[in-house]
Amino acid sequence: MSSSTLLDELIRALQVQPGVGPASASRIAYYLLDRKRKEGLGLAKALTDAMDKISYCPKCRNYTDNEGEECKLCSSAQRATQRTICVVEHPNDIEAIENSSSFKGSYFVLHGHISPLDGIGPEAIGLDLLKGRIEKEHIQEVILALGQTVEGDVTASYIAAMAKKMSVKVTRIATGVPLGGSLNTVDGNTLAMSFNYRHDV
Amino acid sequence: MSSSTLLDELIRALQVQPGVGPASASRIAYYLLDRKRKEGLGLAKALTDAMDKISYCPKCRNYTDNEGEECKLCSSAQRATQRTICVVEHPNDIEAIENSSSFKGSYFVLHGHISPLDGIGPEAIGLDLLKGRIEKEHIQEVILALGQTVEGDVTASYIAAMAKKMSVKVTRIATGVPLGGSLNTVDGNTLAMSFNYRHDV
Ligand SMILES: [Zn+2]
Ligand SMILES: [Zn+2]
Repeated sequence: MSSSTLLDELIRALQVQPGVGPASASRIAYYLLDRKRKEGLGLAKALTDAMDKISYCPKCRNYTDNEGEECKLCSSAQRATQRTICVVEHPNDIEAIENSSSFKGSYFVLHGHISPLDGIGPEAIGLDLLKGRIEKEHIQEVILALGQTVEGDVTASYIAAMAKKMSVKVTRIATGVPLGGSLNTVDGNTLAMSFNYRHDV
Repeated sequence: MSSSTLLDELIRALQVQPGVGPASASRIAYYLLDRKRKEGLGLAKALTDAMDKISYCPKCRNYTDNEGEECKLCSSAQRATQRTICVVEHPNDIEAIENSSSFKGSYFVLHGHISPLDGIGPEAIGLDLLKGRIEKEHIQEVILALGQTVEGDVTASYIAAMAKKMSVKVTRIATGVPLGGSLNTVDGNTLAMSFNYRHDV
């Protein structure tokens, strides 16, 4: 307990951030209070705007600032003609793939992976929506660009089973993504190779 | 550049926090957006309240939520009779000293130390106010409870010189605070010893 209730509350609230424990939270609070009040208020505004206004694109679930509107990638007619959906775990995986120029179809963002222990099932990662898109857009191939982790494997198996029932080809990106690593830790060439060597699952 | 300008702004704003670089900032932003929007808004509110409302006690410069009012420690008549001021670098040093029951006088918080390279001079750490208190409250001893660092030494020398001109005894807490360490990394007994073995400077 410090001399200020508001300070105690700030130190507690800062710890919602992963990687920020009590000691870092105190350090951050003192730094902002003594040196960077304006920037602290700027952070508060950025947080409020982001939490209130960022939604998911209704088609691919990537982040968007315009609620209800399709994102730029989804509204590209050329990408739709590919009839291929690349499924990723995180929005920044899309940035990594776009930078590697490996893929010209459309995307789908899970925002995580199936994890029964955390109560994250197929619906929480949007698989109902993905199923609907595969049907409606007459998708011919689903490319799974998931991390090479246990959770990635479980999620890949689940989506593969779902797509096979719909007689749609499912592939998973190969070589290059290191075991236990995530997509944005590899370079564009490695990522491009992993698209070339994708294999049936 | 992500698909959301607000997300890019949030990731940038999060990096005002010491210890939070681009990778941690992204991780924090995705976590809050996907899992903890309510808590993210709570953090924004705690930041706004703290930045807007926390001020310094006009007497000791400790944090207070009631602008212009003396803090609880400063308004204690018993502490005033001691005619001793303990000077600390950070507000949490006061908590550490209070928990060790080493000291019953009044406090003064510098919120840092003299650091010419960072443009932090005597006025930035409130030494004008400290000088005024020494005179007005007929202080008999100034105890310097500063960290054992180069900056702590420079600051101690400066305050010692100032107090000696005013013919006031100046001591510095001794043994126990490890070299290079800060006050809140030692236990209460060690801190109590360092008060017993304070020496003239
Ligand atoms: Zn989209
Ligand atoms: Zn006070």
